[in-house]
Parts: sequence; C-alpha cells; structure tokens
Amino acid sequence: VKPVPITVAYGDGIGPEIMEASLRILEAAGAAIAPETIEIGESVYLKGNSAGIEPESWESLRQTGVFYKAPITTPQGGGYKSLNVTVRKSLGMFANVRPCAAMHPFIATKHPGMDVVIVRENEEDLYAGIEHRQTDEVYQCLKLFSRPGTERIVRYAFEYARANGRKKVTCFSKDNIMKLTDGLFHKVFDEVARDYPDLENEHWIIDIGAAKLAANPNQFDVIVMANLYGDILSDVAAEITGSVGLGSSANIGEYCSMFEAIHGSAPRRAGQNVANPTGLLLAGVQMMVHIGQPEVAEKVHNAWLKTIEDGIHTYDIFNEETSTRKVSTSAFADA
Amino acid sequence: VKPVPITVAYGDGIGPEIMEASLRILEAAGAAIAPETIEIGESVYLKGNSAGIEPESWESLRQTGVFYKAPITTPQGGGYKSLNVTVRKSLGMFANVRPCAAMHPFIATKHPGMDVVIVRENEEDLYAGIEHRQTDEVYQCLKLFSRPGTERIVRYAFEYARANGRKKVTCFSKDNIMKLTDGLFHKVFDEVARDYPDLENEHWIIDIGAAKLAANPNQFDVIVMANLYGDILSDVAAEITGSVGLGSSANIGEYCSMFEAIHGSAPRRAGQNVANPTGLLLAGVQMMVHIGQPEVAEKVHNAWLKTIEDGIHTYDIFNEETSTRKVSTSAFADA
Ligand SMILES: CC(C)[C@H](C(=O)O)[C@@H](O)C(=O)O
Ligand SMILES: CC(C)[C@H](C(=O)O)[C@@H](O)C(=O)O
Repeated sequence: VKPVPITVAYGDGIGPEIMEASLRILEAAGAAIAPETIEIGESVYLKGNSAGIEPESWESLRQTGVFYKAPITTPQGGGYKSLNVTVRKSLGMFANVRPCAAMHPFIATKHPGMDVVIVRENEEDLYAGIEHRQTDEVYQCLKLFSRPGTERIVRYAFEYARANGRKKVTCFSKDNIMKLTDGLFHKVFDEVARDYPDLENEHWIIDIGAAKLAANPNQFDVIVMANLYGDILSDVAAEITGSVGLGSSANIGEYCSMFEAIHGSAPRRAGQNVANPTGLLLAGVQMMVHIGQPEVAEKVHNAWLKTIEDGIHTYDIFNEETSTRKVSTSAFADA
Repeated sequence: VKPVPITVAYGDGIGPEIMEASLRILEAAGAAIAPETIEIGESVYLKGNSAGIEPESWESLRQTGVFYKAPITTPQGGGYKSLNVTVRKSLGMFANVRPCAAMHPFIATKHPGMDVVIVRENEEDLYAGIEHRQTDEVYQCLKLFSRPGTERIVRYAFEYARANGRKKVTCFSKDNIMKLTDGLFHKVFDEVARDYPDLENEHWIIDIGAAKLAANPNQFDVIVMANLYGDILSDVAAEITGSVGLGSSANIGEYCSMFEAIHGSAPRRAGQNVANPTGLLLAGVQMMVHIGQPEVAEKVHNAWLKTIEDGIHTYDIFNEETSTRKVSTSAFADA
C-alpha cells in the first residue's frame, strides 16, 4: 500500500507524548501513512498569531486532507481565537463524531453496556462566532441554523448509523422554545428519517433527552444534535462511560477531516510520561477507517482492548479491582 | 396567622389530582393559605387564546404575588406560546431554583448523597424569544445577556447559598467560545463572588462541568448558570437523583413567584389516581418557606420523607427492595 500523506500536529502539554505513542502504535500495526508535521498552538499564538496556526500549515492540510491533531494550550488572557473552531470552520468540517462506549468492568463506569455515538453539527449554531455588545450593559450572540447545514448533518448521522450497523438515530432539540431554529432541526430530521426506513428514529426535547442520556444511556444508539448541545452532551456521554480522558473525535469534512482526543493538553502532566494516550489513539482508529485502512483500525482497536482487559493501565484508570500494572505512557504504548 | 392569599392553577392531565393532593397535605400541616383558583392551559389555548392564560388571571397573580401551578398541556400544532415562559417573563421571575437531592436507598439512584441546587437565570438568553427567518434557508435566534440580569441571578445564588447553609457556589459558562455573552456571565460571577468571602466559588466550562455533574454530582453544591444551560442541566440533575418526576422548582421574582413541579402533565396517566404528587408537593414546601411559614414547610417535608422511608410509594418509584406498599395518589397524600 502506498503511504497516505497525513498532517500531524504534536500540540502542547501532554500532546507530544501521546502523539508519539499513538503514531508508534499505528505504525507498528502496519498503518501506511506518511506523516507531515506542522506547528500549532501555544508557541504560534505567542508569536503574535491570534489563530494559533501558521499560514503554510493550511497548505499542508489542504493537500493531505487528513489532520491528526494532539491537544493544544491556548495562552491565558484575551485575544486568542479557538484554533479548533477556526480549523473546523475554515476547512468545512461539518460533522463531529464522538463514540462513547463503556469498557466495563475494566474501566469504572456506572453504565456498563453503554455504547452511544454522538453526531454533532460542527459549523453553525452559536459557534458561528457572531457576537456583539449592543449597549454597555447588553451583549448578544447570534444562533444560526441553515437548512443545508442541518440537512447535511442529519443525513450524515443516518448514513453513519447504516454504515456502522446501528439501529436507531435520535434527535435532540429544544423546538418547543426555539420554534424556528431548533424547529428547523427537528423538521429536517423528520424529513430525512423517511429516507431511512431501515433505521428507527425518535426525537426528544433536549432537556429530558439529556436527562435520560445521563441516567440511562443504554436506551440510545446514535444521537444527532446541534453544535452547542453536542459540545456539552458529548462530554457528558464520554465522562459517564469512564472519563472524557478516553474520548476520541472525528471532525469530518468534504475535503479535510481532523482526528483528535476530546480532552485538553493537561499542562500539569506534561513531560512526565504518565498521560493516557487512549483518546488520541482511538481518534487514530477513526482516522484509519477514514483513509481506507480498516484492518489497521481493527488491529489497533483490538490491541487497545486487550491491553485494557489485561489490566495494563495508566494512572488515570488504575483501580484496585481490574488493574494489574500501573504503567507510563510509553509502557502502555509498548503493551 | 392570617391566611396568605395564593393563586392556584390545577392545570391539565394529572395536574388536578396532584394539586388536590398537595393542597390537602399543606392544609393538614397547618398552612395558612387562602387559595384563589385560576384557569390556565389547554382549555384556554383551545378558546383561541394563544398565551394559555386569561386576562383576568393576571390580576390575581399581581394581587397575590404567589402562584402555585400544576403542569399544563400545550395542544399539538403551532401557534401556541409557552405559558411558562410568558408567565416568568411577564412577571419578572428572574430566578429558577431547583433542588436535586438523592433519597438513597428509598428512591433508586446511582448517586447517593447527591444534594445539588441549580439556580437558573430565568428571563434572558435564547429564551428572550427573538427569532427570525433571515432567508428561506437561514434561521436565527438571538442570545441576550445583560449585566443587570446577570448580576441579579449571580447575587441571588450567593444569597441563597448563604441563607441555606451551603458552602460553595459554582458557575458554568462557555466563555471560551462566547467571550462576550458567556464571558460577561463569568466576569460578573467573579466580581460578585468577592462579596461572599465566606463561600467557596469556582467556575467550570459548561461542557466539562456538565460531564462532572452527570458523573460525580457530589462535588457540587449550588450551581448558577444561564437560562438554557439551566433548563438542560436541571433536568439532568433531577433525573440522576432518581427522576425528573420528583423535581420541584421555584420561580422567584420581585413581585410574584411561581412554584411548580418540573415534570409535565402526563396526559396518559390522567384521571387514574396513580400519579406521584412529590414534585408539586415539594414545590409547595418551597412556597411555604417563601411566604414565611417555614414550620409548615418543615412539617410537610418531614412527612414526605417519612412516607418515602416507610416504603409507601406510588407506582413510579415502587421497587422490590425498599417499597412496602404501592399506593395511589390519594393514598400517598393520606399517608
Ligand atoms: C476547545 C473547544 C473550542 C471545543 C468546543 O467547544 O468545540 C471543545 O470543547 C470540543 O468539544 O472539541
Ligand atoms: C416547558 C418549558 C417551556 C420549560 C422550559 O424550557 O423552561 C421547561 O422545560 C422547564 O424547564 O421548566
């Protein structure tokens, strides 16, 4: 197989350690990839670049169309734009896919059997970044929903469900209050659902839907929702499977897709060789499927499962009952 | 004690049954109240009144300043405004207070010991109801935060914490993305917190804050947040203590306050004398404190605790381990 060029960013904090570990695992499993490194994040922000990414890096992203990204640190203080949001929007990454599956009993959870995928719209909503000060005392932010954007994410969720052997797609919205914006989301969901008679579909008002997700996640399968709801509830879903520290995420676009952990750069753990590379590694698994190397994805995923099941655990998931060895980042990668 | 005039609405669905039960309990405990009944909800909507409340009812609410409200049904189809939102906004009910406490082991929960109060801003945010269609394919909704509104809710949360012997106030916001609106909320929180050196304070980005709340609620005490976040996360918090079916809520305003269950009117259970009156009853407990009869509040709350602990349970919380009798709405009230 000819190596597929991918753009890689080692990021900040624990980023370099977990990226090094993840790439090593992927390559050991036979990934045919040709990584091309770019610099993003803190060091770039501190050069006075408010976006946190250099102009030439965009070129790499446009050429490879695949971005494997470690977490970054945004410096304290104002004036910095969210690199994540900039990249997602600039490159049209419209879908954010976040699988949340329990690994009971190896990773502690109150929800064994949980296996939910959150499909989050990734470009619109309050994330459009249109905010202003109306008077000295009044601030506004614009929530924006478009029919094409909504239709695309909803259709993506149904296609994803079908392609991955899922049974049901659920929609969350608050259309009893926001009858136009959230109303559009719900309406488009009902329309698109008709094209997928092989899949169950249902809608919940987001307040009670979120409550059910937190209390009894096993009733859900694939859930599609708008950007901000997805931001909040994917963290909820990830945390109740065990920890957001283990969550991975694929940001899918037509021309470029980005694969990342959902956790942050944890500066206080940096350089200690203790961080758990799972989030970024599982993002790598999503990436291998995306670039057409599903056998590698499966191999890595199985190796990860086996390591977890063998009780070879980093500090964050170490527990008296199922852990056998507390290991470093690099020892976890070796295993 | 001279009876305090209160406005009462029996609502729709299970509303009349649980209101009848709740009033009966309050009065048996010596509540000095003079209920004045108004009609709201489905029947009013169906008369062509899009707000679901008659003009003369506003007069009663303005005079008593206390509204004890059962859940209502909004008819299917468009054109109906949310009565709750109309009442909250028209009468300036700026704070929505939702206590969520576990009743382990009597009511099943994965979070024994949980005891969180959510203080939700109740007038601003995306609930301002400013929504429009920009083009045929683009819809917008305005999120609005004002400094006075934000300051009032944050100060209310700290005052509530102090008055109720709470130790910590937490703020949730998404100020890494919405730097003006959510940024204002966070900034005002930090400012107001300085006036309460006797209380701990902390801020979480809402995504990870919500995740922690769902996975490990015992680390929280009082949490203050904007309207939509509070809508979603108070349902989450209530559901993980046992059920949203047990949650109560006080909508506090300067001139008028409303006390209600957080659940809906459950039309399918209506007229069967099976519904659990707990949500509305505990809202009644909040009301008795509000109108200056805390001894009655305490008496009712203790009676409720004792009934639950005795295993006298309605169908919704009936369980093999701790229930002794499965009872009807009226038998629960008798007990
Ligand atoms: C870092 C932040 C901009 C981002 C978001 O809000 O989308 C993060 O929370 C996420 O969910 O990927
Ligand atoms: C019924 C609805 C308008 C209301 C809201 O969104 O505020 C409800 O969900 C609540 O939380 O009281």
